[in-house]
Amino acid sequence: MSASLLPALRTLLPTATIWDAAELASRDPGFDARNFGAAALVRPTDTGGVAALVKFCAEHGVSLVAQGGRTGLAGGASTSAGQVICDLSGLNRIEEIDPFARVAIVQAGVTLGALQEAAAEHGLDPGIDLAARGSATIGGMVSTNAGGIMAFRNGTMRHRVLGLEAVLPDGRVFCDLTRVLKTSAGYDLKHLFIGAEGTLGIVTRVALRLDPVAGASATALVGVPDAASAQQIVRHFLGSTSARLSAAEILWRNFASFMQRALGYSPGQLPLDAPCLLVLGLGADSMEAARAALEDGLAAIWEEAGIIDGLVASSDAQAAQMWRLREETVEIGRAHPMAPSFDVSVPGGGLDAYVARIEAGLKALDASYAPYVYGHLADGNLHISINCDGPVPHERHQAIEDVLYDGLREAGGSFSAEHGVGLEKREAYERHADPVKRDLARAIKGLIDPNNILNPGKIISTE
Amino acid sequence: MSASLLPALRTLLPTATIWDAAELASRDPGFDARNFGAAALVRPTDTGGVAALVKFCAEHGVSLVAQGGRTGLAGGASTSAGQVICDLSGLNRIEEIDPFARVAIVQAGVTLGALQEAAAEHGLDPGIDLAARGSATIGGMVSTNAGGIMAFRNGTMRHRVLGLEAVLPDGRVFCDLTRVLKTSAGYDLKHLFIGAEGTLGIVTRVALRLDPVAGASATALVGVPDAASAQQIVRHFLGSTSARLSAAEILWRNFASFMQRALGYSPGQLPLDAPCLLVLGLGADSMEAARAALEDGLAAIWEEAGIIDGLVASSDAQAAQMWRLREETVEIGRAHPMAPSFDVSVPGGGLDAYVARIEAGLKALDASYAPYVYGHLADGNLHISINCDGPVPHERHQAIEDVLYDGLREAGGSFSAEHGVGLEKREAYERHADPVKRDLARAIKGLIDPNNILNPGKIISTE
Repeated sequence: MSASLLPALRTLLPTATIWDAAELASRDPGFDARNFGAAALVRPTDTGGVAALVKFCAEHGVSLVAQGGRTGLAGGASTSAGQVICDLSGLNRIEEIDPFARVAIVQAGVTLGALQEAAAEHGLDPGIDLAARGSATIGGMVSTNAGGIMAFRNGTMRHRVLGLEAVLPDGRVFCDLTRVLKTSAGYDLKHLFIGAEGTLGIVTRVALRLDPVAGASATALVGVPDAASAQQIVRHFLGSTSARLSAAEILWRNFASFMQRALGYSPGQLPLDAPCLLVLGLGADSMEAARAALEDGLAAIWEEAGIIDGLVASSDAQAAQMWRLREETVEIGRAHPMAPSFDVSVPGGGLDAYVARIEAGLKALDASYAPYVYGHLADGNLHISINCDGPVPHERHQAIEDVLYDGLREAGGSFSAEHGVGLEKREAYERHADPVKRDLARAIKGLIDPNNILNPGKIISTE
Repeated sequence: MSASLLPALRTLLPTATIWDAAELASRDPGFDARNFGAAALVRPTDTGGVAALVKFCAEHGVSLVAQGGRTGLAGGASTSAGQVICDLSGLNRIEEIDPFARVAIVQAGVTLGALQEAAAEHGLDPGIDLAARGSATIGGMVSTNAGGIMAFRNGTMRHRVLGLEAVLPDGRVFCDLTRVLKTSAGYDLKHLFIGAEGTLGIVTRVALRLDPVAGASATALVGVPDAASAQQIVRHFLGSTSARLSAAEILWRNFASFMQRALGYSPGQLPLDAPCLLVLGLGADSMEAARAALEDGLAAIWEEAGIIDGLVASSDAQAAQMWRLREETVEIGRAHPMAPSFDVSVPGGGLDAYVARIEAGLKALDASYAPYVYGHLADGNLHISINCDGPVPHERHQAIEDVLYDGLREAGGSFSAEHGVGLEKREAYERHADPVKRDLARAIKGLIDPNNILNPGKIISTE
């Protein structure tokens, strides 16, 4: 877009905040420096404003990139010169929380944290949680099909969305704000917009399921010989109906040791000396019941799972200490700026073999590579960071991806579990996604956005 | 299709069973007499056979209708002269149950009952249940996005499917047999085939989540003044983490009284004298724990919810007696052959007002109308049968639909909760679904099936 169109935009959207390229250059672009590479940013305040902006851009052949909290990890919100950013943070109202129906109607720019707070007032919770909760927006989470810590129980964002409203590339509004779980009333087209990273429509409003929160939650840190052992423990707790497993995060030793050093934890402070650590969260009607259920459950499975060591947190402070080991992953970026990082789903019983295979494969590429591996045990979603500064050369990056992704699809896994494809995984998508699926995806992009107005070049390369 | 093509089909698919129209006329068509109106039925034995059949039909301009258990209630599998049935019952193998990953890979023709049995051997369950379990197939349940009794907790079929394989109208195979819950790897196109009633592809294989089963389950029958009271009870049990609510079925008095008479239950045998009855199922680690949790929970909420009467089943036989009140709905068809029946989702707190409104609206149409209303309380899915013989004249049917469906979409409900659109609700779809959604659906049908080969005229009218 040329700057000459800005006055027309200001006239069209008098209540919207509009920044030009110079203003953008002076602002914080979020997790990705490329987020603010556009000609302008427009922040409408309602669905009508978004629709007007989309129509304007379509008429002028200007491409639009929707942005939420700008916490994406795959470059899905990056922009280039001439593009316009549709900033959704002006659509920031929680329109309704229906405690009876356990449904929230929220605008796309509401942060996860704001929704968590509002729902908690009714003893409810969105059922999804992730570290970027303070800035990640519901619209962005829908657009990347975010997962997080509780997905093994509650599903990903796709499973939490009951209905949504989205502005199509021609400015029409697709409105399916269904609030019920059960609907079999024709093609469920809202799923086209979930995980589409703003390439098929701009999500403006969402109806989300809420769940009752457990009365109290207890945390344990358990040392185990391998992931298979950790999975036995998880299966034991999932099979019991007397308490509700709410988290099962696994940390392989290389990551756990790194975090222990980075956080300055002294040896012996926690049970840390094991090939794998498992952080368990368990909800129950009271704190006593939660702690007792964790202790009893671990005792019952101790021998069978070959547990090495374990501790149920006796205070919130101790629980927080356990969680920091898993969540303060920003420390990796401090030690290895822009370390190459990946996000895969590995099916069921294959975790130990997968980790052994990639450790060997990476070492074959470079003898100094010793990946940090951690993630969501119960759904097989592993995060992997390489212990080197990034970005690495393109060819090396591809070689690392091949080590990490080869065979994953055939095994039923995924090369992108919860971060999306964006720009970062576009080549991986071409190499590792089903070709019929890719053909169909390209055809659908061409059908819905024939002029390639919305977030061009993301997911599907347009050359 | 003319009969002259049958020999070529037999040559193409030597292992497939093939019936001509005469043979079809001598067989049981299932729930809908129109299911066997086709020129031929072909029963391939694998995905390759289905693909070859689709290609053959596409080349000869013959339309194909996929059929599973033929238990659909919306005419989605009905056929007409010249069409060919693709009978999926030959794809009847449970290919794998991975107890560790809690995933089943099944062919489309496997019945729900067969999968439930196979999963139970591993202490697992598909997490979805419905009365037609003995004949309904996984492929059919995927294609109608079936829901059933446990959807409020476990989601509908859409939420249970991890991956699927489908044959496209041009014979290509869309293969996305992902086994993991978390994947954000481009458009999740499998959702196009879920709930599409075989109009966009023929589902051949499915990867499904399995859940650990509770150790034991207890049942209660509770009399309450209204649905709001029943919802208070449900919310109480959902909020507790010490047991797992597995069923919450509601029966309005007119239906409950009818069933009581039809089943010959004597007064006083069960607590039946209340405006609404609630059948509750609760899972726990042992039968004692389940019964105690039901009793304690009901006692705790008794006053607040204004419970009129309640009984926790003391034996499996008594529990079965309670369940028959809800499940033996075939009695309606005996008393009122082909009674007009409907299947809606009503959001949250609106159940009592909705039922009052439709009772009055139906009475205004015909003073003798007193609908049987029952369904899945916790997700608002109500089944409604009119107490008259069917089919009623077209205009009357539409007037009944208007009473039942008007305002539902605006309130966030659905005119088709779990039965699909098929033929029966095509007009309702045109009148009550979002017009932008309908436009987009029609465009997608045109994109994927330009020659209208697969199940033409279902969901989307093709005139």
